[in-house]
Amino acid sequence: MPKPELLEYFDSPTETPFLVEHLNEEFTSVCPKTGHPDFGTITIRFEPAAVCVELKSLKLYFQSFRNEGIFYEAVTNRVCDDLSEGMSPRWIQVITEWRGRGGIRSRIVAARGDVPAPWLRP
Amino acid sequence: MPKPELLEYFDSPTETPFLVEHLNEEFTSVCPKTGHPDFGTITIRFEPAAVCVELKSLKLYFQSFRNEGIFYEAVTNRVCDDLSEGMSPRWIQVITEWRGRGGIRSRIVAARGDVPAPWLRP
Amino acid sequence: MPKPELLEYFDSPTETPFLVEHLNEEFTSVCPKTGHPDFGTITIRFEPAAVCVELKSLKLYFQSFRNEGIFYEAVTNRVCDDLSEGMSPRWIQVITEWRGRGGIRSRIVAARGDVPAPWLRP
Amino acid sequence: MPKPELLEYFDSPTETPFLVEHLNEEFTSVCPKTGHPDFGTITIRFEPAAVCVELKSLKLYFQSFRNEGIFYEAVTNRVCDDLSEGMSPRWIQVITEWRGRGGIRSRIVAARGDVPAPWLRP
Amino acid sequence: MPKPELLEYFDSPTETPFLVEHLNEEFTSVCPKTGHPDFGTITIRFEPAAVCVELKSLKLYFQSFRNEGIFYEAVTNRVCDDLSEGMSPRWIQVITEWRGRGGIRSRIVAARGDVPAPWLRP
Amino acid sequence: MPKPELLEYFDSPTETPFLVEHLNEEFTSVCPKTGHPDFGTITIRFEPAAVCVELKSLKLYFQSFRNEGIFYEAVTNRVCDDLSEGMSPRWIQVITEWRGRGGIRSRIVAARGDVPAPWLRP
Amino acid sequence: MPKPELLEYFDSPTETPFLVEHLNEEFTSVCPKTGHPDFGTITIRFEPAAVCVELKSLKLYFQSFRNEGIFYEAVTNRVCDDLSEGMSPRWIQVITEWRGRGGIRSRIVAARGDVPAPWLRP
Amino acid sequence: MPKPELLEYFDSPTETPFLVEHLNEEFTSVCPKTGHPDFGTITIRFEPAAVCVELKSLKLYFQSFRNEGIFYEAVTNRVCDDLSEGMSPRWIQVITEWRGRGGIRSRIVAARGDVPAPWLRP
Amino acid sequence: MPKPELLEYFDSPTETPFLVEHLNEEFTSVCPKTGHPDFGTITIRFEPAAVCVELKSLKLYFQSFRNEGIFYEAVTNRVCDDLSEGMSPRWIQVITEWRGRGGIRSRIVAARGDVPAPWLRP
Amino acid sequence: MPKPELLEYFDSPTETPFLVEHLNEEFTSVCPKTGHPDFGTITIRFEPAAVCVELKSLKLYFQSFRNEGIFYEAVTNRVCDDLSEGMSPRWIQVITEWRGRGGIRSRIVAARGDVPAPWLRP
Repeated sequence: MPKPELLEYFDSPTETPFLVEHLNEEFTSVCPKTGHPDFGTITIRFEPAAVCVELKSLKLYFQSFRNEGIFYEAVTNRVCDDLSEGMSPRWIQVITEWRGRGGIRSRIVAARGDVPAPWLRP
Repeated sequence: MPKPELLEYFDSPTETPFLVEHLNEEFTSVCPKTGHPDFGTITIRFEPAAVCVELKSLKLYFQSFRNEGIFYEAVTNRVCDDLSEGMSPRWIQVITEWRGRGGIRSRIVAARGDVPAPWLRP
Repeated sequence: MPKPELLEYFDSPTETPFLVEHLNEEFTSVCPKTGHPDFGTITIRFEPAAVCVELKSLKLYFQSFRNEGIFYEAVTNRVCDDLSEGMSPRWIQVITEWRGRGGIRSRIVAARGDVPAPWLRP
Repeated sequence: MPKPELLEYFDSPTETPFLVEHLNEEFTSVCPKTGHPDFGTITIRFEPAAVCVELKSLKLYFQSFRNEGIFYEAVTNRVCDDLSEGMSPRWIQVITEWRGRGGIRSRIVAARGDVPAPWLRP
Repeated sequence: MPKPELLEYFDSPTETPFLVEHLNEEFTSVCPKTGHPDFGTITIRFEPAAVCVELKSLKLYFQSFRNEGIFYEAVTNRVCDDLSEGMSPRWIQVITEWRGRGGIRSRIVAARGDVPAPWLRP
Repeated sequence: MPKPELLEYFDSPTETPFLVEHLNEEFTSVCPKTGHPDFGTITIRFEPAAVCVELKSLKLYFQSFRNEGIFYEAVTNRVCDDLSEGMSPRWIQVITEWRGRGGIRSRIVAARGDVPAPWLRP
Repeated sequence: MPKPELLEYFDSPTETPFLVEHLNEEFTSVCPKTGHPDFGTITIRFEPAAVCVELKSLKLYFQSFRNEGIFYEAVTNRVCDDLSEGMSPRWIQVITEWRGRGGIRSRIVAARGDVPAPWLRP
Repeated sequence: MPKPELLEYFDSPTETPFLVEHLNEEFTSVCPKTGHPDFGTITIRFEPAAVCVELKSLKLYFQSFRNEGIFYEAVTNRVCDDLSEGMSPRWIQVITEWRGRGGIRSRIVAARGDVPAPWLRP
Repeated sequence: MPKPELLEYFDSPTETPFLVEHLNEEFTSVCPKTGHPDFGTITIRFEPAAVCVELKSLKLYFQSFRNEGIFYEAVTNRVCDDLSEGMSPRWIQVITEWRGRGGIRSRIVAARGDVPAPWLRP
Repeated sequence: MPKPELLEYFDSPTETPFLVEHLNEEFTSVCPKTGHPDFGTITIRFEPAAVCVELKSLKLYFQSFRNEGIFYEAVTNRVCDDLSEGMSPRWIQVITEWRGRGGIRSRIVAARGDVPAPWLRP
């Protein structure tokens, strides 16, 4: 079960705006319809307001999806909500890219706040 | 024969706008002029309003073009119309890329609604 | 000798604006200065108004440059003019990329009409 | 249905041994179990004895598998047998590589006659 | 828990020796020491004697490792033993390649029977 | 310990604005939490006002981070501050990309001054 | 010594604006500080007003830097000035990319006139 | 028409055996059946006995095939014969790789003399 | 200082011969001549006799070279000796590949015992 | 002028045979026929007997070819002779790869002593 309570945060080292991007190439969850595992990558990109997410806790949070039956679209929005709530960033964007089933690869992009145009595109 | 009636939809998991992209690397139809098969990839990209297209039904819909004699330009606009009608998305973009005949590779891009600039480009 | 009279056109399948791109990776002409063959790729990209260029006729038109002595810059503008005249598209862009002579590779980009910004860049 | 009768042959231009390889990147047949289309590439590699297979006829022969329900292993051995019978080459090797189903990509290699070691490996 | 009883087999379509290779790019198990998931690819390569492994059953068998705590070296040898026992192939080779932990990527290669030299190397 | 005093500068060869980018593919520091080394690349991009940073001194400055325990976010902002102070450029952008720990790769982007939009994106 | 007098020009084939890009992958000069050779690529991109630079003369001009002791930043601005003066283009951009010394690769971008945004970025 | 009389040779700089390989990425001839141009690359690889082929003359010789109607298999053997005759090398191998027609790419390999095993494979 | 005492071993899961390969992409030591850091990758490849090296201990052992002044050739042979002594493998091969200094990249290969031919080459 | 007297050597760290490979991606000399510069890469590969070539001296030696008019074949054999004489290695192989003139890229391979088969091929 996704466990946002695993997420830890640390104070941003500066008040000057900057950008953080974390890319996990080993994301896996389970298709709620077929029970087969889904594999993909997940990228989070945000501009911290006061805090940044701690890397090891982020990894454990991602691992908590491992045996969860959940659709692509829901994973993406769920992660976006959990991190948005936990960090209150200036903006955040979450991109999932899935290796595909039946010859179709998918990409889902969710955001909260105003993502600057140059960062909008995966 | 293209069968839009195969397409199924499910409720979008959120009302917050987000983006969905599905890429099928195994699209094939038939050239109506020569009778030879055409091979290519087809990408659909949209922002759901209320519903999203279900992946397996999308795959079967794409397969219904397999023995259809139809030009590149028509495939692209047909898929764009069928999905646009079925989902009433905020916007939709359909991109086909064809492996080519006689040394010429082609790409066709159709859209319905206002595609945001950062997503416009294949 | 370039033969625009080889070009054939067919009616666009829709009045909704869309984009067409054809990439020929096997373009060759002759350097008018040295007599050596030039090799490159040629891309045409346009938004059809009423008609689209037919692929096989495009290929034969491109082949008519095979033994023509003509500079890179002239090929690019010539193709742009011929297709512009034949199709009266909303806009057209022609990009040639040359494998190079003496260690220098070249790219020439010509356009007629207003190319939308996202498509401007090769 | 696979139609070996489509295959045509022409006389080899020399009696000195040489090697021919044809790679079709657009092979498709149908899975006899699920009815879903399979997509892959097929490579034939042989040393002609007296005749070589004609390219256009080879393409039409490959297209005759388009709506055939047939397993990977059977396609590969069938093509190997048909061409072996038609050309009586010094040796022939047929390699199919499949885009995959359920995350598994496959490669099947069949041969008739003694393939020289350096050519054995795809 | 790895479930070799999931594996199904079908009769080889020919008695002539040929080669089969299946590559699963979405293999995952769990590190028995740290409890963290491991991700990698697994390739099986064999020359069938009388039977071939059925693809869907192979996929389910691979999925049965998903929550198993098992070392790289043991996964590789275990798969090699299970398939060797189930198919009695002329020879079989199993190659696992792991995305890595702490900056180190790994590859393990096990075999049963005499793998011909050209196929030995991944 | 990071030593900004190692940095040397030379007069810009022109008053016309231009852009400079230096990419170091061999950056390493130490994780302050685990004591394990971090590896990555660091890119600086700036428009000089009056002076440019000298390359050899930049390399020595980067090497002074080798045994420093410092987080990704802090490295990036520290380098941005040190160079910003030393050169007073029209603008400067610093991008670090880290090979990753536990399967997660990261990218941090800091800037001082107004980076023109086309350069914003790594 | 750089010899702009080697540069030759020819009349542009059209008055309609278009874009020309030449990329030399074999540029070399000498570091004035260490005496070691520098290697890189140089790209010029411009919109001709009345004339275009002739390719062979451009190559000889580039070769005239071969044994010149000159910094990256100065090469880039020098070429930009020489060509700007010789062609009076609508705008010109010169990009040099250097293989690097001591693990640092560099890129310098100079321009004269207003480079349209889509072309700004290397 | 292929003109072997264009080929020039120079004395090998040493009597110690060594290997020479020339790869032309811009080879073109004409299909004798359809009249359409064929495009490909041609590689020659040999161990000189007393003389080596001069590069510029080799280029002109290759260009003499430009408007020749000739099959893939014949081009390859013809070049092998012409160079074999002109240089009497210890051994020679000629490899042509063709961009393909109708979705099929081809490779032809001819040799005269005993090619050492490590060089046999393209 | 290199610390072979950090290396730990575990019993091989089988007595059947198999192959293990570990690739560390983040190896760094120091050039004893210039004091500048060297960066590279190190691959070990071996056939275990009775024990395998434990991954985490291998990582710590590699890290113990971080501030050691030692030549490429010596690193490679030292690692080969330490692991050979610790594991008494059937054979072992150690390959280091260095990013290079002054434009020259290097690769050093050491071995103990008889490496089978197919594995000899990196 | 090539200056073998620049080459320095150091004692091999072990008497156990091992392999050394140095790859210089920035080699340049001058074509004696046209006076135009040639660009390429040069790889040396050897098994040291008693001494190894020192890297910095190797770089300076390679630089001494910079303004030398010399053919590809002669460069390769000259470097092979100079290093063979200076190091008396068990065997040595020198491979040059040239970016090409007139669309033809070349590779020359020279050797002294018995190169083991797995290393023979570039």
